[in-house]
Amino acid sequence: MSPAPKPGRREAICEAVFELLGEVGYDRMSMDAVAARARASKATIYRGWPTKPDLVMDAFEHRFGGPFEPQDTGTLRGDLMALLTAACHVANSPDGDVMTGLMTAATRNPELAETFRRCVYEAKQSAYDTIVRRAVERGELPEGATSDLLHEILHAMVLNRTMWHEGPLDESFATRVVDRVLLPVLRQPA
Amino acid sequence: MSPAPKPGRREAICEAVFELLGEVGYDRMSMDAVAARARASKATIYRGWPTKPDLVMDAFEHRFGGPFEPQDTGTLRGDLMALLTAACHVANSPDGDVMTGLMTAATRNPELAETFRRCVYEAKQSAYDTIVRRAVERGELPEGATSDLLHEILHAMVLNRTMWHEGPLDESFATRVVDRVLLPVLRQPA
Repeated sequence: MSPAPKPGRREAICEAVFELLGEVGYDRMSMDAVAARARASKATIYRGWPTKPDLVMDAFEHRFGGPFEPQDTGTLRGDLMALLTAACHVANSPDGDVMTGLMTAATRNPELAETFRRCVYEAKQSAYDTIVRRAVERGELPEGATSDLLHEILHAMVLNRTMWHEGPLDESFATRVVDRVLLPVLRQPA
Repeated sequence: MSPAPKPGRREAICEAVFELLGEVGYDRMSMDAVAARARASKATIYRGWPTKPDLVMDAFEHRFGGPFEPQDTGTLRGDLMALLTAACHVANSPDGDVMTGLMTAATRNPELAETFRRCVYEAKQSAYDTIVRRAVERGELPEGATSDLLHEILHAMVLNRTMWHEGPLDESFATRVVDRVLLPVLRQPA
């Protein structure tokens, strides 16, 4: 990604990517359409982002990236509620529809799947580690508690509800997942 | 669905639907292509199945329908392992790819989503009820234990792994989900 586009230019390009993903979806979004929407030259686009997955994931990092320090509410339950409420908020927003569209495109596109997984899923792991570490320090969880299942279950429950349109991603959903699934799973003896 | 197609004819049509879903996916599968593949007249197809979701879901019922009595292994853990192993087996088969394709198509097609949900998701609820009822009768779970979370979590974990290509749906996955997620969730006091 050298020479890097100027900051304002990158912003406009990333905005254009999100707009087009929302309007036409990943499969029908062309790099040329992004250039046109962002009033950038095609050369700028292809120099900065050689492939469509690169372009889409940079737009994601631009919007959602940066270090993600989960809220410290003072209790494990509070931290989990804050995390799940934030995840539901994104899933309920227009960005959530864009993400669902990308995930479905990714089932037919291994390169996109790998990039998406790295940027969206793995990048958030440290936040889950932080929540569990704090709970261990507070004495709420036993030493050696790990966050692997926490991340997987939380993501799975939100995805499942989104894909099946099973019901709203609201506070009652968050409470149910935290109290009846995440806490019992995390608190079980190793 | 009247007059009903003859049994052998229905079978050929349902087979054709599965073949075409695997080859071209839901969006690009036409009812006419199904007629051609099954060597049926278009009139037969449209008389029996007025819409594409009808046709696809009847093919699903034909293959996966019928009463589903879960295996009674004598223990809750055994029953859950049998259930999850069967779910992984389907997800790993070519039918699993067809299902993933239908689910992704369903995110853009509310009619398909509703039909798919009814046939694939809700139709299995009684099997989950049976497993929990047996465990209560054996004294493995407290009176009043319900199967709603069992169904949702199991489905969510399989879907999440399928969508993210996170790892194989194998015995080690099944063991982890049963021992570290489903059993702790089911055994928690009401």
